[in-house]
Amino acid sequence: MAKKIFLDEQEMPTQWYNIMADIKMNPPLRADGTPLEPGDLAPVFPMNLIEQEASTERWIDIPEEVMEKYRIWRPTPLVRATALEKALGTPARIYYKNEGVSPPGSHKPNTAVPQAYYNKAFGIKRICTETGAGQWGSALAFACSLFGLECKVYMVKISFQQKPYRRTMMETWGATCVASPSEETQSGRAVLEKDPDSPGSLGIAISEAIEMAVGPEDTRYSLGSVLNHVLLHQSVIGLEAKKQMEKVGEYPDVIIGCAGGGSNFAGIAFPFVHDVINGKEIKIYPVEPKACPTMTKAPFVYDHGDIAKFTPLIAMHSLGHAFVPPPIHAGGLRYHGMAPQVSQLISEGILEPRSYHQLESFEAGMMWAQTEGYISAPETNQALACVIDEAKKAKEEGKEKVILVNWSGHGLIDLGSYERYLSKQLTDYELPDEMLEKAEEVFKDFPKPALLKSR
Amino acid sequence: MAKKIFLDEQEMPTQWYNIMADIKMNPPLRADGTPLEPGDLAPVFPMNLIEQEASTERWIDIPEEVMEKYRIWRPTPLVRATALEKALGTPARIYYKNEGVSPPGSHKPNTAVPQAYYNKAFGIKRICTETGAGQWGSALAFACSLFGLECKVYMVKISFQQKPYRRTMMETWGATCVASPSEETQSGRAVLEKDPDSPGSLGIAISEAIEMAVGPEDTRYSLGSVLNHVLLHQSVIGLEAKKQMEKVGEYPDVIIGCAGGGSNFAGIAFPFVHDVINGKEIKIYPVEPKACPTMTKAPFVYDHGDIAKFTPLIAMHSLGHAFVPPPIHAGGLRYHGMAPQVSQLISEGILEPRSYHQLESFEAGMMWAQTEGYISAPETNQALACVIDEAKKAKEEGKEKVILVNWSGHGLIDLGSYERYLSKQLTDYELPDEMLEKAEEVFKDFPKPALLKSR
Repeated sequence: MAKKIFLDEQEMPTQWYNIMADIKMNPPLRADGTPLEPGDLAPVFPMNLIEQEASTERWIDIPEEVMEKYRIWRPTPLVRATALEKALGTPARIYYKNEGVSPPGSHKPNTAVPQAYYNKAFGIKRICTETGAGQWGSALAFACSLFGLECKVYMVKISFQQKPYRRTMMETWGATCVASPSEETQSGRAVLEKDPDSPGSLGIAISEAIEMAVGPEDTRYSLGSVLNHVLLHQSVIGLEAKKQMEKVGEYPDVIIGCAGGGSNFAGIAFPFVHDVINGKEIKIYPVEPKACPTMTKAPFVYDHGDIAKFTPLIAMHSLGHAFVPPPIHAGGLRYHGMAPQVSQLISEGILEPRSYHQLESFEAGMMWAQTEGYISAPETNQALACVIDEAKKAKEEGKEKVILVNWSGHGLIDLGSYERYLSKQLTDYELPDEMLEKAEEVFKDFPKPALLKSR
Repeated sequence: MAKKIFLDEQEMPTQWYNIMADIKMNPPLRADGTPLEPGDLAPVFPMNLIEQEASTERWIDIPEEVMEKYRIWRPTPLVRATALEKALGTPARIYYKNEGVSPPGSHKPNTAVPQAYYNKAFGIKRICTETGAGQWGSALAFACSLFGLECKVYMVKISFQQKPYRRTMMETWGATCVASPSEETQSGRAVLEKDPDSPGSLGIAISEAIEMAVGPEDTRYSLGSVLNHVLLHQSVIGLEAKKQMEKVGEYPDVIIGCAGGGSNFAGIAFPFVHDVINGKEIKIYPVEPKACPTMTKAPFVYDHGDIAKFTPLIAMHSLGHAFVPPPIHAGGLRYHGMAPQVSQLISEGILEPRSYHQLESFEAGMMWAQTEGYISAPETNQALACVIDEAKKAKEEGKEKVILVNWSGHGLIDLGSYERYLSKQLTDYELPDEMLEKAEEVFKDFPKPALLKSR
């Protein structure tokens, strides 16, 4: 029995899978409640990506220029977690898709590379974005270096100071990384005027990046999750995993991925959701932190994707666009909303969200490191906590379940959080219900999404 | 044309290649000049590894228990550096063996895993070692966690303070890591008595690790380079690369690897040296920093492997066992000596050492990151500087050379050194000849090795 299942490069998927062909969706709206038109987004994104965002074609060709760059690290290995299975004494067969093998160390370049490509094809010379913990900023820096584009990243100031390695990564790939709030933008200056020592926030950084992007004709903005073209690009993960499982005659009973904005989760799950809509039975669990319980506690509503309300209203699970989550170490899972397609599928019961505490996630990560060897990103540890639970349940039930998990990234740039865990400085956060109710105030007057059924 | 050449797990080499079957060597000696007996090393290493160290069998079976752990990350990909070739406009075809895919991020676990296995098989419960920059310590911590052994690492105090991530890695794999000099050993206390603020050195850390290892019956010491059993275990790199090149109908004209103690270099090169001894023509370049020019400037002599003279006298290129190299960032290449087998082959002209400055190495690493995507360890950058030189030479000569390089590890835990490079704080060091002459004082009264010919 092989530990790792490889694909040859010629077996790589040549098309992305677009879930929009298979599900019913509430459309995005302008702030006044009227339907969003593609042209509304033209100052922010290049038109080829806006068209892709709106597409309902099931299969979209991956351009050869993107395939060439994907081959730097793709196809990624599918690995049987035999040592973890043995340690747990479970009859479950656990497979993980190793997305940590990319140069920036996560799944993020699956979309950063095509986004850089489409921007370049549209004549754009410079991309602006924001980054919180730094995974997205470094993936976009990497992608821009491959296509010779300028890249400017507004990094939340507190992370900029606490995670100098992330900034150095971006600079190694030729990007410019500035602490946000900065003096470069009106949004940044307005914050600094009120509070010169502001530690920054993702909301402020998004505002700065969009402000810098919408001015010059040769500059655009780029987002690392939530939008459908991002989920589309990430589908390469699940499409590869499906082929790899076929090679060893397996098909998953359970699929697990952590979800912040939803892109790595959708990447592994959506090609299988296609099967579920066509009658297959799979348990599919998106996993989030209990400290930011968007899917498990927040309602399905229309809300903005950012604190400054630059984005359209989108139908999603949301804790409210003004929500500021506690400072947990899974920085990539601290978003107030969730990708609309993931949210829609939750509302239909096709996806069943789970949540875990920070400490139990790190415990899972420690067990993983000491069996399967690799040190996981704090975000990925959330998914691993769920894998271990499912494997234990399979043992109790005496069932030979097949579990597939997206190992979304390694934790080598996040070892500071392991240091805090090992020295017992980490604590759990559970939000009081009053705080959740208060957070939801911001969208109470917005339109309500319809309850749609895709199957 | 494929970018990456994979092997299936069933194609993995099942035996290591032992260069001792193919070359003539000056034997190791006791300090008094008499021949070393295997029993002399029994307090330090388990007898099964001592026997392997002395073996002259050409092929040695890899135990199935080791194969099982190797499969966590092996076989590693062989990758065609197409983007670098394009950027250089060279007719050379450049292939790199990606040893950075292991959990600790370098080639080191290729020997850490079998060393942990053989110690366990011999009944050992606990391994002590030292680490400078931290690569070896974290590889041994990883290997010990896989076999349920205790692992204690003495880490040079200045690195312990400057590289907290390395220490956290070791602790995540369950090892204990203490700053050296420590209060735990006589050697450590003696240093601290004289200098309570001692920043430590590799020499002191080795003394502490050996002192702790030779006492209890269930404890032994482990070394990450220089010794022949280490080079033997690393031969899996070159054996895989050979099969992978065969798959695409290639054979190298040039082989390049960085060399500190010599293990990653020997790993990729020795299976091809076997062919050279049997008549093939290959240019083989071990690469070192100009700041620690063991192979390019130091003589071939008998010397000790450590400052405290705990080790036997071995025939090697040496800057003298008391030599303290300048504080360059390629911490793994700051050793005063060189593996005896590598040294012997240099003395015969089969290997042709090269040296590069720190700044040109980082320049090479920057070009690599912006073309091939991955951020390399500072040590690996030395090899890449040589690759780029050879590729340029091939362009000048209009020759379609095939270059094979060992990409020994990623630089994600070394981003601090990139930060110093990017902010122009790094400088070059070239040792004055007087300093080299002085460094050589320490071995002037030792026996002289004979000049032997292997072919």
